[in-house]
Amino acid sequence: MQGAVIHGPRDVRFEERPTPTIALPTDAVIRMSATCVCGSDLWPYRGANAIKQPTPIGHESCGIVEEVGSAVRTVKPGQFVIGSFFASDNTCPHCKAGYQTSCQHRELIAGAQAPMLRVPLADGTLVPTPAMPSDDLLPSLLAASDVLGTGWFAADAAHVKPGKTVAVVGDGAVGLLAVLSAKQMGAERIIAMSRHASRQKLARELGATDIVSERGDEGVEHIKDLTNGIGADSVLECVGTQESMTQAIGVTRPGGYMSYVGVPHGVSLDGGDLFFRHVYIHGGPAPVRRYLPKLIELIWNRTIDPGKVFDLTLPLAKVADAYRAMDERRAIKALLRP
Amino acid sequence: MQGAVIHGPRDVRFEERPTPTIALPTDAVIRMSATCVCGSDLWPYRGANAIKQPTPIGHESCGIVEEVGSAVRTVKPGQFVIGSFFASDNTCPHCKAGYQTSCQHRELIAGAQAPMLRVPLADGTLVPTPAMPSDDLLPSLLAASDVLGTGWFAADAAHVKPGKTVAVVGDGAVGLLAVLSAKQMGAERIIAMSRHASRQKLARELGATDIVSERGDEGVEHIKDLTNGIGADSVLECVGTQESMTQAIGVTRPGGYMSYVGVPHGVSLDGGDLFFRHVYIHGGPAPVRRYLPKLIELIWNRTIDPGKVFDLTLPLAKVADAYRAMDERRAIKALLRP
Repeated sequence: MQGAVIHGPRDVRFEERPTPTIALPTDAVIRMSATCVCGSDLWPYRGANAIKQPTPIGHESCGIVEEVGSAVRTVKPGQFVIGSFFASDNTCPHCKAGYQTSCQHRELIAGAQAPMLRVPLADGTLVPTPAMPSDDLLPSLLAASDVLGTGWFAADAAHVKPGKTVAVVGDGAVGLLAVLSAKQMGAERIIAMSRHASRQKLARELGATDIVSERGDEGVEHIKDLTNGIGADSVLECVGTQESMTQAIGVTRPGGYMSYVGVPHGVSLDGGDLFFRHVYIHGGPAPVRRYLPKLIELIWNRTIDPGKVFDLTLPLAKVADAYRAMDERRAIKALLRP
Repeated sequence: MQGAVIHGPRDVRFEERPTPTIALPTDAVIRMSATCVCGSDLWPYRGANAIKQPTPIGHESCGIVEEVGSAVRTVKPGQFVIGSFFASDNTCPHCKAGYQTSCQHRELIAGAQAPMLRVPLADGTLVPTPAMPSDDLLPSLLAASDVLGTGWFAADAAHVKPGKTVAVVGDGAVGLLAVLSAKQMGAERIIAMSRHASRQKLARELGATDIVSERGDEGVEHIKDLTNGIGADSVLECVGTQESMTQAIGVTRPGGYMSYVGVPHGVSLDGGDLFFRHVYIHGGPAPVRRYLPKLIELIWNRTIDPGKVFDLTLPLAKVADAYRAMDERRAIKALLRP
């Protein structure tokens, strides 16, 4: 088969790769219905993560089970399933605590920008939909695989509750779906930080009540002004840079919660500063698996439409164009159809 | 009057100071029944905080109200009251949220190692006892003023709940009373990290079920072993150094809570490391005022005896000896009687 392979900065190629097969009895192989490019794929694409050798890339998946290993019990060939960026056994103590991305047997998924994907620990990792989905649900189901689950974790980790004031730092797909998640959890006021007109518009569609377009100290001041000088109850950091973390911590009220779900790059937090800010902080790779059953239900009932974050659809063979469009911020998120 | 004044590293003098008076209508002046030396007083004593000029020192207080300003309503002369290290109005949004040490009008208390103390914002800051306490309750009531309230906040901030496994880093008075607090909150297992026989003994008396005497990586490994490789649900960091923070974060299970209540000195946290550990962190100057009514009740009913952490009692005039004993770790905590 042909799939996406990253060779170096800004060098993603659609090229021949071995077709995945069952390697272990707990594996499944799925035939991709749709896949996509993640904001986190842009870190290696932009050279922020070293690439030592040509590496299959992509970790968001939904599709039909082609084959399962002999030990797989809950997932069957022919089912439509959704996975995420880590495989997890869903039985170890960390999984039981709801932190499947810290599973004692976790395995990073790679190579999902391809027509077929091997998924380890299939029983623990994949969640089937109630039936075969109609085509218009595909973008939303695919979003559940990472960006929606990550935005949802951001809101949950920041203890978003009915009536609360929420601020979201970052207007990528995760930030936008963090807005959607906060809205679902009953937040009264949702302040989205965004400088781009099209993203501001989408943020409002998804539930934002206020937009703050300034960054840095000015952005902090604006949010303080909007909250009577108090700060937000819950702040969702969806970028992963020093600037965005500093901004997020700066707008959280004392005793408030700041979650961070963008992989931190070069972020260092000063203990004394954090101490006197009285902020709860929590984050990490989102345990999407914890939320998948709930998210699939909300999508299936058409309560939410997270697929709106895909503003570009391309054939899988054009994967390099999808990276370029996202890198240049011409697209929020690109969906790829094999 | 004569009170303690710090002139420089290891130079605390008992010398003439102006007797405090009512400066603002919201002030009270209290006549100290007992005061003490705090672990945090050792930071400037050891030269870790710069001392620009001779400065009255001490922030833990309990005593009898001598005089109140014209605007004071809830505190009356003759009452026995307990204060803490920050004065707070107890009416601003941060106070109402339970973070009185982030009060919009907070003022740091200084100069409590003296026979008399001016307390600003008396109505918001001071909590009276139900009646005049008997002398044997004084140490415990004084402990409520800071070290007990701080240990209690450590346990609360780390979400200690019935049945949970707790680890406490630090065997100073705060760490020991964090053990007591965790016990009161129903923790099933309380692992105290301590290398000193006398402190290990007291930790066990206060509720510790296990003692870990190793530090650093070895200490982390030992706690991992004690918890089946999982880590503790709640970890209470009661020191404030890079080593103790690293240790605390290292023994917290994914999805667990790490609280930190020792003023951080030279602590820097790596964003990427925190991210992949999935740890909740929360800390800061303990909002002792939030807990004072509850703590006074527990002491008054003789449910708890936090006064046990005082293992040295000296006349106030010997304050310099008290600092020396604590600096050299000959005493856990020194009580001073005016």
